[in-house]
Amino acid sequence: MEKLEHIGIAVKNLQKSNELFEKLLGKPPYKTEDVEREGVRTSFFDVGGIKIELIEATRANSPIAKFLETRGEGLHHLAFAVDSVKESIEELSNKEFRMLSDEAKPGADNKMIVFMHPKGTNNVLVELCEERKG
Amino acid sequence: MEKLEHIGIAVKNLQKSNELFEKLLGKPPYKTEDVEREGVRTSFFDVGGIKIELIEATRANSPIAKFLETRGEGLHHLAFAVDSVKESIEELSNKEFRMLSDEAKPGADNKMIVFMHPKGTNNVLVELCEERKG
Repeated sequence: MEKLEHIGIAVKNLQKSNELFEKLLGKPPYKTEDVEREGVRTSFFDVGGIKIELIEATRANSPIAKFLETRGEGLHHLAFAVDSVKESIEELSNKEFRMLSDEAKPGADNKMIVFMHPKGTNNVLVELCEERKG
Repeated sequence: MEKLEHIGIAVKNLQKSNELFEKLLGKPPYKTEDVEREGVRTSFFDVGGIKIELIEATRANSPIAKFLETRGEGLHHLAFAVDSVKESIEELSNKEFRMLSDEAKPGADNKMIVFMHPKGTNNVLVELCEERKG
């Protein structure tokens, strides 16, 4: 894993948090995106080439809604850019890391993604993401 | 805040976590450092110019020990590089952000640092850090 791609932060109210992070970072989010499949609405800030992704739940049974319920707002995940999620799953599984799903799935920001099981990574939720072609 | 400087991760056992993150990131930490004042031992990994700092408590009453006790291992803070912590404290206080201390103090990695109050930043613990001169 050569590059940190983004940091995900779970928030209760995306609009309020957009205003807060704009005040903190000195610039507005450069885009907002719904990922219906995941039940989230997201916004992206750029800080010197690293993205900060704010994530709000859009339905009560989405993983982010559950995270907010049990842990509250705050740091949610780290995402690393990889050339091929498929190859990374194989490589990391060979090193005894566990994934939360067997295959890459579409995520926000035109990416194919997979999450690693946080029990195997010091309770840090790690996402692997690959730029989608075409 | 122009640049993400590092991401702090609280761990129970630095040696074991060093091995885990070496397996995950494909390289060993490039340094280990004790910060006695804070009651922590830290190690640093470089991922494409962003540092990942693993933090272990070295005494039971350190803030990291308390974090581990209440939240467990995992993502702990985001640190942004600033030119002057003093000026950033003033600027952010004027925007109604609260700091955890009034003044910069020495941190790991030859930095002067201050933490912002997480209640004002969506429960994300934000550190501001300035390279120490000399």
